[in-house]
This record gives sequence, structure tokens and C-alpha cells, in this order.
Amino acid sequence: MKRALKIFDLRSDTVTKPNAKMLQAMFNAEVGDDVYGEDPTVNRLQKKCAEIFGMEAGLFVASGTMGNLVSLLTHCKRGESVILGDRSHINVYEQGGISALGGIFPTPVPNQEDGTLRTSDILSKILKENIHFSRPKVIAIENTHNICGGKALNVDYIREIVRIKEENKLKLHIDGARIFNAYYALKETNNRLDPKDLTRGADSVNICFSKGLCCPIGSVIVGSESFIQEALRNRKIVGGAMRQVGHVAAAALEALDSVEEIITSDHLKTKKLYKGLKEIGCDVDAPTSNILLFTPPKPFLPSQFVTLMKERNVLGSVAYTNKIRFIPNSGTSNEDINELLEIIKQIIKTKA
Amino acid sequence: MKRALKIFDLRSDTVTKPNAKMLQAMFNAEVGDDVYGEDPTVNRLQKKCAEIFGMEAGLFVASGTMGNLVSLLTHCKRGESVILGDRSHINVYEQGGISALGGIFPTPVPNQEDGTLRTSDILSKILKENIHFSRPKVIAIENTHNICGGKALNVDYIREIVRIKEENKLKLHIDGARIFNAYYALKETNNRLDPKDLTRGADSVNICFSKGLCCPIGSVIVGSESFIQEALRNRKIVGGAMRQVGHVAAAALEALDSVEEIITSDHLKTKKLYKGLKEIGCDVDAPTSNILLFTPPKPFLPSQFVTLMKERNVLGSVAYTNKIRFIPNSGTSNEDINELLEIIKQIIKTKA
Amino acid sequence: MKRALKIFDLRSDTVTKPNAKMLQAMFNAEVGDDVYGEDPTVNRLQKKCAEIFGMEAGLFVASGTMGNLVSLLTHCKRGESVILGDRSHINVYEQGGISALGGIFPTPVPNQEDGTLRTSDILSKILKENIHFSRPKVIAIENTHNICGGKALNVDYIREIVRIKEENKLKLHIDGARIFNAYYALKETNNRLDPKDLTRGADSVNICFSKGLCCPIGSVIVGSESFIQEALRNRKIVGGAMRQVGHVAAAALEALDSVEEIITSDHLKTKKLYKGLKEIGCDVDAPTSNILLFTPPKPFLPSQFVTLMKERNVLGSVAYTNKIRFIPNSGTSNEDINELLEIIKQIIKTKA
Amino acid sequence: MKRALKIFDLRSDTVTKPNAKMLQAMFNAEVGDDVYGEDPTVNRLQKKCAEIFGMEAGLFVASGTMGNLVSLLTHCKRGESVILGDRSHINVYEQGGISALGGIFPTPVPNQEDGTLRTSDILSKILKENIHFSRPKVIAIENTHNICGGKALNVDYIREIVRIKEENKLKLHIDGARIFNAYYALKETNNRLDPKDLTRGADSVNICFSKGLCCPIGSVIVGSESFIQEALRNRKIVGGAMRQVGHVAAAALEALDSVEEIITSDHLKTKKLYKGLKEIGCDVDAPTSNILLFTPPKPFLPSQFVTLMKERNVLGSVAYTNKIRFIPNSGTSNEDINELLEIIKQIIKTKA
Repeated sequence: MKRALKIFDLRSDTVTKPNAKMLQAMFNAEVGDDVYGEDPTVNRLQKKCAEIFGMEAGLFVASGTMGNLVSLLTHCKRGESVILGDRSHINVYEQGGISALGGIFPTPVPNQEDGTLRTSDILSKILKENIHFSRPKVIAIENTHNICGGKALNVDYIREIVRIKEENKLKLHIDGARIFNAYYALKETNNRLDPKDLTRGADSVNICFSKGLCCPIGSVIVGSESFIQEALRNRKIVGGAMRQVGHVAAAALEALDSVEEIITSDHLKTKKLYKGLKEIGCDVDAPTSNILLFTPPKPFLPSQFVTLMKERNVLGSVAYTNKIRFIPNSGTSNEDINELLEIIKQIIKTKA
Repeated sequence: MKRALKIFDLRSDTVTKPNAKMLQAMFNAEVGDDVYGEDPTVNRLQKKCAEIFGMEAGLFVASGTMGNLVSLLTHCKRGESVILGDRSHINVYEQGGISALGGIFPTPVPNQEDGTLRTSDILSKILKENIHFSRPKVIAIENTHNICGGKALNVDYIREIVRIKEENKLKLHIDGARIFNAYYALKETNNRLDPKDLTRGADSVNICFSKGLCCPIGSVIVGSESFIQEALRNRKIVGGAMRQVGHVAAAALEALDSVEEIITSDHLKTKKLYKGLKEIGCDVDAPTSNILLFTPPKPFLPSQFVTLMKERNVLGSVAYTNKIRFIPNSGTSNEDINELLEIIKQIIKTKA
Repeated sequence: MKRALKIFDLRSDTVTKPNAKMLQAMFNAEVGDDVYGEDPTVNRLQKKCAEIFGMEAGLFVASGTMGNLVSLLTHCKRGESVILGDRSHINVYEQGGISALGGIFPTPVPNQEDGTLRTSDILSKILKENIHFSRPKVIAIENTHNICGGKALNVDYIREIVRIKEENKLKLHIDGARIFNAYYALKETNNRLDPKDLTRGADSVNICFSKGLCCPIGSVIVGSESFIQEALRNRKIVGGAMRQVGHVAAAALEALDSVEEIITSDHLKTKKLYKGLKEIGCDVDAPTSNILLFTPPKPFLPSQFVTLMKERNVLGSVAYTNKIRFIPNSGTSNEDINELLEIIKQIIKTKA
Repeated sequence: MKRALKIFDLRSDTVTKPNAKMLQAMFNAEVGDDVYGEDPTVNRLQKKCAEIFGMEAGLFVASGTMGNLVSLLTHCKRGESVILGDRSHINVYEQGGISALGGIFPTPVPNQEDGTLRTSDILSKILKENIHFSRPKVIAIENTHNICGGKALNVDYIREIVRIKEENKLKLHIDGARIFNAYYALKETNNRLDPKDLTRGADSVNICFSKGLCCPIGSVIVGSESFIQEALRNRKIVGGAMRQVGHVAAAALEALDSVEEIITSDHLKTKKLYKGLKEIGCDVDAPTSNILLFTPPKPFLPSQFVTLMKERNVLGSVAYTNKIRFIPNSGTSNEDINELLEIIKQIIKTKA
């Protein structure tokens, strides 16, 4: 009976709901009017995020998209340009907001399979001062990289980007919507890694809590005091200043207490699902973190396969690259994975 | 002991915190990923707001500022103009966001003492098509009007504005951050008033829940189906699309259940405070709703008086018009009013 | 015969055509590619304008509107505000370009009859730093003031504005489309006046050559070296960088050689026309420079009267204030004035 | 003696100056106030351009950059996107104006060597309606293609692009700054080619007169009546409406009378120069029209070689692709080519 109603929702890690402890923290949160800077819970969260990533200050925002938008509005004047990946979330999934609202000019370079931008490509966009050219101002990278399948940018790469941005007097923005996924993925092979190693030299970092971390709402951007001071204005102008938002921030503080457990569990489930899908004949990219991209066996087309799965309560999405995307998350148990693999096996059999 | 710690916070109705029932509703809320349109609590709130104000659809946004911004981005293309009050919240308190982010051109007309815009002034801004002029697109009014001291625009006035906007093929946006205050204030003398009477003919209305209604976060904009469909895109582009936001929306639904009680109580407390302040020698504007503007007796200056009150735990603010502003709210009991009047009396005595 | 074809075009001073000497100068101009900074004629004009108004550098632009737009784009970042007259050319006649294209927020204050802005009004718009407010950046004044009927702002007033802008660390932009008209009008009562007296302390001044000065095209903006350097970029981005533009600039250089003669002659003709119109029963504002605003005797309505004049080859326009506007110009001879007064007299007689 | 002063300027075709007939036409032009639509010469030029390219109407603008900007401002609302070449003039050389001023989001695809965009790349940017994506609105192509070395897009290719844009309900903008170069280059192998064949199905075309055609100033955009009507507003808002601009337009009308002669002569000189450079050991791309890209023999670096040439009065530029660019033009005679080849030969010898 109950089985029939069970839905395996792996479309995204954004579908996660706060767990009981988070809910309790939200319920009990001490709050104040954050527009006056008087919400102690928000203040604690902002401070904690800044500390974790080695920055001076933090700012709670309504979403990852707002975190990126506010950061870039803060760094760039009208007409300045951002060098970013052509498959980055900012370039693809944010409705072109930096241009539409901020008059910022994007100069995309190709994302490599591993989510990186070739340094030669970046350098080719850093043009000399000339009245014909938009002035480059920011390099933006994404870690982990969503469209590239949750790939993590490693410390050496980030260091190289920091070197380029400093030599050219640019700013570095890290869209770290899933930076904790990057951190725990990289930590598997580097036990001494600190989260600060991933953000050292950056001028702003955007960290989402409503993805794998199960919070209902919110991201935090971190940077220097002066950056955050201006970002506060830009959060206000987009309508992102909220009042007793500690009720929401409390969930994020709670999530930080169990971040390692949540993230590593998601990664393990992803690996398990990867193996299972391979075994039943799917063409699956080896996962780095919690994102899995695969192609069903012939003759199934991705979109058709997603529909067939949906009819059996297994929810995935068709990714930008036309592969099927699964993101195992806190709502997915180890057993769920066995069950949904079984369901997929049945689907494949229908055309075998 | 405890008394010494009691703070009378009348700076704004935004400082209100959710009551126990709201908190419980937030805790128990059934939620989903609202970016996928799957949060049942948000959907219920949006529907209910639309119904109350006689509109087809609603959309939850992070703040009143976002509600206004998203509405005007939706109505106006780059370079189109909004006719609005020179003392409206949009023109004064939203950082010029409609221009900064939306390329919208404001053509302010003077707000009268009662919060209205003279129709002759409005008509003078509706210029004929000509390549020299920005094209007028929207008339925006505010009800109740914040800077004008919480004045309520009545049904006859709104009807007149609707007539003008229709004759000139414009849109009407109502910044109804405190529209429930307007409604209950007007209802005192018109028992048959319906909330729809205040919004009939409008193309968009912005309703705040984190002011007198005590919700921690959020506003809802209402309008036609097609308006809300486009507003959804504009909410996304500013970063206002949130995930399991039902945990927040639940408080608003709960507030709607006791809206009459909350608002009329605030209005009564405001009247009581008005009388008290007058009696002790302040020059107080007669209040319409929950906003009280007054000048302390000579030789006190408003800013100095606010400081003196603050030292005694009575918090007010200096308004745009350089009067002192008090907004009695759910955190203010009837007894509090007696106590804080006593405190103010003592302050006045010091220079008597 | 020929008389029947004579058209008295007093709609604007923009209708003027280059005289024979100007045409010859255009024909003979030494030119180069101005995008490379290699047009000697343009360079000479820019330098000469800077010298006349006591500034470091100048920049040729395609129009007065472009001069204002480029200046304000250069002074203001996205979201900063300009304090300007509600009847200024920038606020009324430039399609809201500063907001539409530049994200600049206008905060208009009422233009007084004499074209000035009350200093108290200006000060009321210089709000303290606060995340709710747009940051004020520029005060913009207009001299002479078009909609206010060609009124000239005098040196004392300008000095007062400079004082305010300096005390508040703002910039001052002067829309001097008709600044030579202001200069020669003020000089009538102050023989020692220097053009620099009207621009001292300003950060940018916009001077039009295609109005009374008869040039076919063009304005020059003047300011500091660093201002002009950035303005060069903003002229480029709006598409205003032109190539062998010396062929046009040559007319402006030529015009500067006879500026006194041209302007004072226009002013004399305006005074003559003023007296004539009064004598035949029109209600005419006493002119300061070359703009004349008047109301025809009853029962004629301005728009109707303009049509009746047009049928008799006398062209005027209906001004923003709904008066009739005449701008006598180089195409208007002293005799023309007698003739057109006669025509107007005939029109009036038809309803006497 | 004289030889020493002779400068061979092949940096660009923008350095060309009007010839005697053009100058005479400018001198004699019948003009009027074009802001009132009353300049007969401009009106004639606009009409003629529209006819040549099979469009309903035309509009004179100050520059090629303004032509592109005004066209795209007219087609696109805030936030809509333009699919264009990553090496297109709009994307590289116009300071990002479409984003900075218009809030338009560019989605560049790689320009192929021949100046085309792969249709698969274009299709990959035409994303389905989704609140995450910017809405695609315009495809922009460039013919001939500047950075790609003056390559001409042929009729079959343009037809294919028109098919894609129609199937997807997009608009097509052609940056035809050098469209006459494209036309005469393609006509060499297709004698029956009509200029309309290059623009059929386009929604706007931008044609420059101040490049090879020797005019001092100006471009004309052509399109439908309703497009031009809106473009008129956008030309005004950027400050591009000019007054007696017939004095400039006259040169363009004159140029159209000898366009074949001018362009084919430039192309012949380019071929001659190509052969000469090859013979003396440069690595030269075979030219299609009037742009020549080459690399000097080792060990010379392009920038160093340009300097050496400059010292000998031969002016070229270093192109975006780091090759040396020569654009033979009306200021370059057949004899000049022999002379400058001789000079280059001497330079090469110095390191032989």
C-alpha cells in the first residue's frame, strides 16, 4: 500500500526538507529585525560562515541566485565584464540577471568537462584598456560545478585562478552553492584539507543551504567587511532584506553542525547509485560529489526515460547536456536506492 | 528587575515577532519545492490572498520592496515611466531600484497630506506619444501611506484613479504593504466595506505580512494570471524564488485568520497613545491607522528626544518628515502604553 | 509671388542652417579619424570650448541629449541619483534616458519660474547614507532654462549651488545647451562678466552648437581631463564616436567667431517680437534671452492659434506649459518680425 | 622630399576622407531639421538604402556602433538575449553596450574561420521557455566579418539562418557595416546577385558609410516601418538624433553612386597587396574583400613589425587575432601598394 505512494525524488537536492532538529531550531530561534541588523541568529550564521571560509564577514540572502547577483552587482559597475564559464549557473540558469538588472557584460569561456576554465581562455578575455572593450572586472568560477556533473575544482586550480586575478587586478567570485560538496569530495584524497583552502584569495563566495543541506531557504555570501557593507545595499535593492529571518537561518546553523555527515552520506549514496546504474546497462559518468549524469541504454531517449520513471514514482530531470540527472539527497535512503534501481531495471527490460 | 529590561519598541511594525500559533503553524507546515510550484502552503496562501482582494492569482515574495520591484519590472519595459508619489515608499525607500535595476523612469508628483496624488498632477504626467518623452505606463499609489502617517486612501479616490488609468490605458499598482490597515481604518465608518473595494481595477497589489501582521518574512503580490506568470520570472531574476518557503508562508496564513483582531487592536492602541501624547504636551497628528507622527514640546528636537527616550528603553524613529514616529504593534500592550507615556512625561519634565 | 512661399519658422532655434562662412569652413576643414583622436578640427574645437569655459578638456558629441547623457553616465554609477529640475530638459525631454540606459535615479525638485531650484528643495534630497536611499551624486541645472522660457541663472545663484555641491561632495552638471544665451543676456547688466563665471566649480558643462549658433550638428561637453577621459568611453558606448567629424566641428569653430553677434541679434529680435505681440493683445512673458512664451487673446486656444498661424506660414510650437513658444533665430530677419506680427494681427482680427 | 611625408595609412577603411564630389554634395545639400523629419537629403538617403536592401524604411545614425545598439534596443526588452558570434563586432568592440545600457543578455557562439556561426551552436542557445533562462530574441550575424578577416557570408548561409530564426520566432539582425564589401565579393562568382539577396528575411540591417565608402560620418539601419518607428525613439534616447544632418547624408548619397567602383577597386588593391606580401615571405590569409591579415616572417613579432613599419610611414594595426591587419582603401593608390611593399621588403631584409 504505502509503497505505491513512496516517491523517489532525485530531481535535485533542493527538494530536501528540514529534519526534525532543524525544525526545532527554527521553532526556538531567537530573532530580531534583520533590516536593523538585530537578528542574533542571522548574525551568528553570518559570522560562522565567514569563519569557516576565512573571510571577514557574511550576509544571508534568499537564494543562490540572489547570492550571485548581489555579489556581482557589488563588484561590478555598469558595463564592466565578468569572465565566467559558458555552462556556469550564472551564465545559464539565472535569466541573465547580471546583464538585465546590473548592466554587467558577461564574457563566457568554455567550461571544460571537469568544470574548470582554461587559463588561456581566461587570459584571452582580459583585454587591455581600450574604448572599444568592456572592462574586465571579475572572474567567476563554480565549485562544485552543476552542469559539469558536480565536479570539484581543486586547490591547485583555485590557486592558479587567484594568481591570474591578482596579476590582472581583478576580483574572484566563487559560486559555491555546493562548496561543501566540493570540500568533502576533495577531502577524500586530502585529509588535511580545510574549507579555507578552497576560498583563499577569493573576493566573494556564495554558499547555499537549501540544497543538500536541507534548509528550506537561503544562502550566505562571505567576503571582506567592505564588500559585505556594499552587498548589504545590493541585497536591499533587489528586495532581499528580510525581517525575523533568524527562523530560517536557525536551520542553516543546525545544518552546519552535521554538514560532514549529511554531505558524505549523499556522496556515498551517489556512488552506490552509480554502480547500480552501470550494472543495469546505463552509461553513467563517474560522480565526484552528489550529482549523477547518465544515459539510458538504447533505444530509450533521456526525456522519454524520465517520463517512464516518473510513471513509477522515480523522479529525475533531463540535464542541460541532455543526460538524465539524479541527485541523491537526504530524502533518499540506502534502501531507496535498491528499490529505485529495481524499478529502473524493470523499465529497461520492457524494451530488452 | 525585569522592568529595567523591558523595551518598548515602537520604531516600526516590522519588529513584530510571530506569536505562538504562528510559530506552531510554521513548524507544522506542509512544504515542497516552491521553485517547482510544489509547496502546498505557499500555494494556499497565494490563492487566499488573491481571493481576498478579488484577483486571479498571487505570488509570495521575500519583502515589500521585492513585491514593488517585481510588480513594476513586470509592468514596465526599459524606459517606460511610473507616475508615483514623491513621498511614496517606492520613490524614497527602495534605493531607486526600479531605475537602477529596471531602467524604469519615475515621474513623481507631490503626495498630499492625506497620501493622495492630485489627479491634475497625474494627468500632467501622462504626456502624448512623442520621441522626446518617456512613455507613461503605470500609476502607483500607496495604501496606507507610510510617510504621510498611515493615511488610508478611500474607495472613491481609488475609483477615480482607476478611471484615469483606464482612460489612458495605463496600469495601476497599489503598494498595499499596509492595505489591511487601510481596510480596517476605512471600515470604521463603512461597515459594508470589502477588501476588494480597495483593489478593484488595480493591475497589481502588494500586501506585506511582516509588518503589523507579525510574520517574520514575506509579502504577496496579486494580479491577473498573466501578470503573475511574468512576475514569477521577475521574482526569479532578482533571486526571490525560494524553496520550502511554506515554513514561512504558514505564518501568513495563520495571521490572516486573526487579521481583524490584530489590526484593530493596533489601531486602538495607536489612538490611545495619540491621546496620551497630546495630554502631555506633544504636537501629534491625529492617526488614521497604526502610524503616529508627533513633535515633542519645545525645546526638545525630535532627534534629541528620540535619544532621550532610547536611554529609557522607549524606541521610536525620526520620520522622513522630521517628526517622531511611533508604530504601536503586537509587541505593545495596553499597559505598555501607560508605562511609556509615563516615561515620556518624565523626559518632558526634565526641561519644564 | 515669392512672398507667398516665405515661411517664418520660429518653432525652435534648432531649425537654423549654417551660413555661407560656416559652410565654407565645413568644406575646407582639415579632418582625420576622430576615433583615433586624429581630427585636428575637432581637437581645436574641443580645446577652444574648454578654454572659454575654464575647463581642462572638451569632447564633441552628436547632440545636446547625448552631451547630458554621456556626462551623467560618467558621473553616476548604477543607482546613484541626480537632483534636477522637474522641468529640466533632462527630466522631461530626454525620454528618461539616464534611467533607461544608465540605471540612474532622478530626484526632481520643482523648477521655479526663473529656472532655479530652491536650495532648500535641493538639500531635502541630499539624504544621509542609509540602505533605503539612493545615493545622491549630481546636481544638474540648466542655463538658460528652456521650459522656463529661456531664463538665465545668474552668477550668485550658480555660486550658491557650487557651495552646496561642495559641502555635500556632489558633482555639478550644467546643461548649458543655450549657455551663450545666458552669458549674453547676463552681460547686458554686467559688462565684466566672463563665460567662466557661469561654469566655475562645475564638473561638467554641455554646450550646444546646433541651436541658435546655426551649426547643423553637435554639442561639446567640457570638464576635467579625467572626466573627459571617461566621457570618451561613454560617448563610444552610446555610439557617438564619429570619424571625420571635423567637417561638422568646423561650423562650430566658425560660429564661435561670431557668437556675440549671432546671440545678441537673436535677443534683440526676441525683444522686438515681445513688444509687438504685447501691442496686438497677446499675454507675453518678458523674455530674458531668445525664447518667448505667450498666450493669444481670448477666445483663441494656443493649439488652435498655432494651427491658424501655420496656415499663414508662421510656425511656432505649443510649449510644455501650454503657452505658445517662439524662438527668433538666424533665419528670422527684423523685417520678418514686422511681417509675422502683421499676420498674427490679422488672425486676431478674425475673432475680434 | 615629398616622399618622406607620404603616409600609407592602412589601419582601417575608417580613415578615408570624402572625395571632391562628396565634399561638393555636402556643401550643396538641401537640409532641414531631421528631428522634425524635415531633412530632405536624409530622407532620400534613408529611402534609397531601404530600396537597395529591400526593406520598408531606413534611419540615419551616427555610427556603426549606434546602428547595432539602436537595432538591438529596438528588438529586445530588458533581459532578452542575443545569439551572436563570440568574435562579432557587437560582442568584442562595442564595450558591451547592449548589456550595459540595454540590459540585453548576450549568448555568444564561436565564430568559425569563415565568419559563420554553426547552426548547431545557434540551436543550442535557443532554450525552451523556463524561468531559469533568458529568453532568446535575436540572432545577429556580421557580413563581412571584421575579426574573421573580411569574410563574406553567402546567400545559402543567410537563408539557413533566416529559416532558423523563423522556425523559432526570433529576429535576425545583420551587422552589415561592410555589407557592400560582402556584396561585391560574392558578385565575383555570382553575376546575378542582388543586394536584397543578402538581407531577405532579416529584421534589421546596419550599413556603414564611413568605412570603405569614405563618408566622414554615419550609418543607416533599415527594416520594417514599425521597426524604424521604434528605432527612431531609441536613436533619440542614446542622443543620436541630429539636426541638419543632410550635410553629412549627402556624402553617403554620393558614395552610393559610385559604390561599385570604390569597393571593387579596394578589393583589387587588397588582392594585389596579398600577392605582394606573399612574395616577400609573409604568411597571408587569402582575402575575400578588403581586409588582409598576415604574419610577418620570423623572427618578427606582429606588434614589433607594426612599429617598424610605422617608423617608415606604413600604418597597419595588430588585429584581435594578433595578426597584422591591412585595409587598403580609397587613400591607397595602386602605386602606393608597390611602394609600401618595397618598404616592407626593406624591413624584412634587416633581419634576413
